[in-house]
Amino acid sequence: MNKPFALSVKVLVRDEEGLYLLLKRSAGSKANAGRWDMPGGKVDPGEGFEEALKREVLEETGLEVSLDGVAGSAESESPSRRIAYLIMDARVESGDLQLSAEHDEAIWVGRDELAKMDLCPQFIPFASAYVDGR
Amino acid sequence: MNKPFALSVKVLVRDEEGLYLLLKRSAGSKANAGRWDMPGGKVDPGEGFEEALKREVLEETGLEVSLDGVAGSAESESPSRRIAYLIMDARVESGDLQLSAEHDEAIWVGRDELAKMDLCPQFIPFASAYVDGR
Repeated sequence: MNKPFALSVKVLVRDEEGLYLLLKRSAGSKANAGRWDMPGGKVDPGEGFEEALKREVLEETGLEVSLDGVAGSAESESPSRRIAYLIMDARVESGDLQLSAEHDEAIWVGRDELAKMDLCPQFIPFASAYVDGR
Repeated sequence: MNKPFALSVKVLVRDEEGLYLLLKRSAGSKANAGRWDMPGGKVDPGEGFEEALKREVLEETGLEVSLDGVAGSAESESPSRRIAYLIMDARVESGDLQLSAEHDEAIWVGRDELAKMDLCPQFIPFASAYVDGR
């Protein structure tokens, strides 16, 4: 019997210079502590999708973003469940970067750097495809 | 001002022979009538992702499926909104194919055929990447 899938939506935030935002998971994180992640999280499918996602990014980063499109997908497995990720492209509209307790550090990197960072392992195939993609 | 994104989850169902299920959208469909689609759709907020998705597939196809993993992503735009798609791989567990009023026809095709069908256009890049992918 397979573990049930949960859905998580991550956001690849780009600034006006074309740099991408990564967040370092806090040292106390249960999984992937200290690795680079994207803002986002569990979001209910349906019409509230965009608003819920923007609110999630705002809470984690202090940034207001707008969604540009679909960036890709990913998946992971933990002892209790599997997670299916949809990853959205977004751009910064306003706000000043301010992290929540979930993350210890933030970095803005160029597209080529994305796949070279110490990412949460489930995002490495996505990052490689994304860097190659355009 | 961009149109808001809604989220839709589609399911690429495979049978025990490795053939993939496509459904022809009914002649009365508002969009992409007569084109090939996958089962799935909006999942009601609050429901468990996997259970809701399986119920959706059952209603549209009469088939009980299990989710295998993440197949990819896609996006589309209509006059009123944008849609972000997450596409899941699934396999048939039991049941007999029986279509709902949403679809006029069903076909099982090999992996190589997927990208050659007259798909809803938003799924063509996904299908090409999927066929090339493994």
